[in-house]
Amino acid sequence: MNFLEERILKDGQVREGDILKVDSFLNHQVDITLLEQIGEEFYEHFRDKRITRVLTVESSGIAIACPVARRFGVPAVFAKKARSMNLDGDLYTSIVHSYTYNVDNVVTLSRQYLHADDSVLIVDDFMANGKAVQGLLDICGQAGAQVAGIGIAIEKGFQNGGRLLREAGMDLYSLAIVDSMSADGTIVFRAH
Amino acid sequence: MNFLEERILKDGQVREGDILKVDSFLNHQVDITLLEQIGEEFYEHFRDKRITRVLTVESSGIAIACPVARRFGVPAVFAKKARSMNLDGDLYTSIVHSYTYNVDNVVTLSRQYLHADDSVLIVDDFMANGKAVQGLLDICGQAGAQVAGIGIAIEKGFQNGGRLLREAGMDLYSLAIVDSMSADGTIVFRAH
Repeated sequence: MNFLEERILKDGQVREGDILKVDSFLNHQVDITLLEQIGEEFYEHFRDKRITRVLTVESSGIAIACPVARRFGVPAVFAKKARSMNLDGDLYTSIVHSYTYNVDNVVTLSRQYLHADDSVLIVDDFMANGKAVQGLLDICGQAGAQVAGIGIAIEKGFQNGGRLLREAGMDLYSLAIVDSMSADGTIVFRAH
Repeated sequence: MNFLEERILKDGQVREGDILKVDSFLNHQVDITLLEQIGEEFYEHFRDKRITRVLTVESSGIAIACPVARRFGVPAVFAKKARSMNLDGDLYTSIVHSYTYNVDNVVTLSRQYLHADDSVLIVDDFMANGKAVQGLLDICGQAGAQVAGIGIAIEKGFQNGGRLLREAGMDLYSLAIVDSMSADGTIVFRAH
C-alpha cells in the first residue's frame, strides 16, 4: 500500500452516492507534502518521456499540476471551465459533462499554450468516468500535441474512465485505484 | 523594479477595459519558478507572523497558495466558488461579486479547515476592488480566526481594494501595484 492509499484510509470518508471525500488533504485543504510526493511519483513514472508541458483543468487539478511541473522543469497549463472575458477568442474548446455538478462545462485553452511539438502529461486529482481527461485529450488532439501520459491521484476503478483509456493504449498511471467502497467506510484498492 | 514587475512589463498585455493579461505566466500557463519566487517573497515578508494556514479562493489563487504554504510548512486551504455536492452542509459562506464574470459567487469553506486559533495568511494572484479578499476576511471573521496578513501578486492600484484594506490597518503586501496602464502598453508601477 502506497502513501496515498494509506492517507485515503486514514482521512478519506465514503459518502452516499459513491462519493469519496478527501477534502482534508487533497482538494479543499491541501497537504503540501503529500502533493510533493505525488509530483515525485509522477516524475519517476514519466521521466523517460520528453514532457514539455503539464496540463490539467481547473480547479483542484492545479494543486497537483504545479509540483509535477516543477519536478519536470516545464510550465503547468490549466484549462478553464467557463469562457472568461479575459481570454482571447483564439481558443481550443471541448464540452465536458460534470456529474458532480450535473452541468456541461465548456473547457477552454488558449492556443498560445499548447502546440504541435508539445509532449503533454495530463494530470488530475480524480478520475471517475474520465470525461475531464477526455476533454483534455480532445484539446491536445486539436493542437496536434502528443499525449505522453496521464497521471491521476485517485481513480474510481468501478467507473469506466480508466478502463477506456487503458484499452485505447494510453499510459495511464493512477496512484490509488478504488475498486469498491461502501458506506461503512470499507475501501478496497486495486493491487499494484 | 522587482522580478514580478519586470515579468509583467516583458510578458503582460494591456487590453481594453483595464484588463491586464498575465496568462502566459500566472493564471493560465504558469511559470513554476516565478511562483516559487512569489512564495519566497511572501515568506520573507510574513515570516515573523505565526502563520498556521494559507487561505485563497479557487481557482488561480491555488497556484500561488501552494508554494507559499510549502514555504511556511502549513496547509493551504482554498475556498470554493459554488456549492459543491461533495461539500458538507457545515460551511462558512460569503457572497462575492465577480466583475470579471458579472456574477455573484457564493464562496464556501468547510468549518473543519479554519478555526478560532488559526493565524491566516490570505493570498491571491490579483486584487482590484478587493471583493474576493473581503469575502475571505468575512469567512475568517465567522471562524474567529486572526488574519495575520494578505499577500497579493498583482494589485490594480487604480481601483480601491488595496486602499480600503490599508486604511483598515491590514498588513497588505502586494508584489506589483499597477497605478496606471494604457492601451499602448504603458504600465506604471507604484514605487516601493
